[in-house]
Amino acid sequence: MYKKNQETSYTLGITLSIELLKERPELVKMVYFHPSFNDGSAKDLITDLASKSAIPILTQTKIFNTLSQKENCYVIVEFEKKVAEIDKNCNHLVLVNPSDAGNMGTIMRSAVGFGFQDLVIITPAVDHFNPKVVRSSMGALFHLRISTYASFEDYLSDNLPHDYFPFMLKAKHRLGSNLVPQSELPYALIFGNEATGLPDSFLNIGTPLIISHSKAIDSLNLPTAVGIALYEFSKNVFKSK
Amino acid sequence: MYKKNQETSYTLGITLSIELLKERPELVKMVYFHPSFNDGSAKDLITDLASKSAIPILTQTKIFNTLSQKENCYVIVEFEKKVAEIDKNCNHLVLVNPSDAGNMGTIMRSAVGFGFQDLVIITPAVDHFNPKVVRSSMGALFHLRISTYASFEDYLSDNLPHDYFPFMLKAKHRLGSNLVPQSELPYALIFGNEATGLPDSFLNIGTPLIISHSKAIDSLNLPTAVGIALYEFSKNVFKSK
Repeated sequence: MYKKNQETSYTLGITLSIELLKERPELVKMVYFHPSFNDGSAKDLITDLASKSAIPILTQTKIFNTLSQKENCYVIVEFEKKVAEIDKNCNHLVLVNPSDAGNMGTIMRSAVGFGFQDLVIITPAVDHFNPKVVRSSMGALFHLRISTYASFEDYLSDNLPHDYFPFMLKAKHRLGSNLVPQSELPYALIFGNEATGLPDSFLNIGTPLIISHSKAIDSLNLPTAVGIALYEFSKNVFKSK
Repeated sequence: MYKKNQETSYTLGITLSIELLKERPELVKMVYFHPSFNDGSAKDLITDLASKSAIPILTQTKIFNTLSQKENCYVIVEFEKKVAEIDKNCNHLVLVNPSDAGNMGTIMRSAVGFGFQDLVIITPAVDHFNPKVVRSSMGALFHLRISTYASFEDYLSDNLPHDYFPFMLKAKHRLGSNLVPQSELPYALIFGNEATGLPDSFLNIGTPLIISHSKAIDSLNLPTAVGIALYEFSKNVFKSK
């Protein structure tokens, strides 16, 4: 079993393991092959990548039985849980108390997709190195800078000023309504927990925004809401391409 | 165990079961209480709703052991798998071969959230009445009209013309780029399978669109992509409110 307090985590499966070996070989401690791993070309590629970075390969079944519920997992890569701190001058995505591993990975994937490299996590939160996060991020985790803080106040005091946009059902301004004042500052998009959203205190921070939706649903799914916000805020960037 | 070919499905948990009893009581066959169910106000509300529609309540543990992996599930509602056919004059959301139950539920939630009531499913596809779909839809399933077809051609021949927008990584036009010709027809947003997307043949249908993203990811998560498209297409509707 993977535990939050251990110093390493794992990628499960061929695609994700290759992504890690290509993107962040310096983090990798060990490659595990299942004895039944017989995809020749994938095996050759992984062996080659491991060899280039002097990473040992161990063939065994034990770790597969421990970590993988899927029958068709033949490669596991163990890596150090190290990640660069956020860049204080860039736009930030701030997740306050996110609780679901799959959601966090999906959000990472959208963030990287829309050009956001800096992820702030306010704890308590799901461990962002949990193998489920890594898997659902489809490797996007390895493209991010991540900082965690024990409170939003700690995040504020440790960073340069940003334009803050808390996403809240009680917000007055709608995303995409062009009501938002533009400044020269970088911005921070802030989202709350899946079940509870952001506390009301965020109504007094920056420009709270809502993604308008019909009354037939209580709220949008968190990764969907984050994806829409990232899409809308990054539109001008991608428009010019 | 729930099976696709049975005529009923289930809502698990208090919130979802109340939603069903309020929205579609005519579908409900039976309410199950766990013997340990002791949330008085929820129990009273559910008993009241069941009584209004002459729905029987059965207290037992068996069905909870069969259907629920969660320890804190105390209410299950069994309902008929009936849903209205799509309205041929409305905008459609078309999912071609969706394979993941959680994704389908999340997509239903976004669809209802952005005012889309008509969902088309091209099979093979995950069973849209699977309890996992119902759960991740957060009850949105009960607000939708749904039709399934064995092929996209069957869908076309059974419906009035729409403006078709297949979402594809190979599309030339970007979502939100205002390149899209507007007509008086209702429109259909079309999305492919999670792993494989839409077949290339859809490049010749309507106006294929891409949601531009960086090259650091292969694609966006399907529910995120659908959510962004629904948001963008419904913007003018919700802007006026």
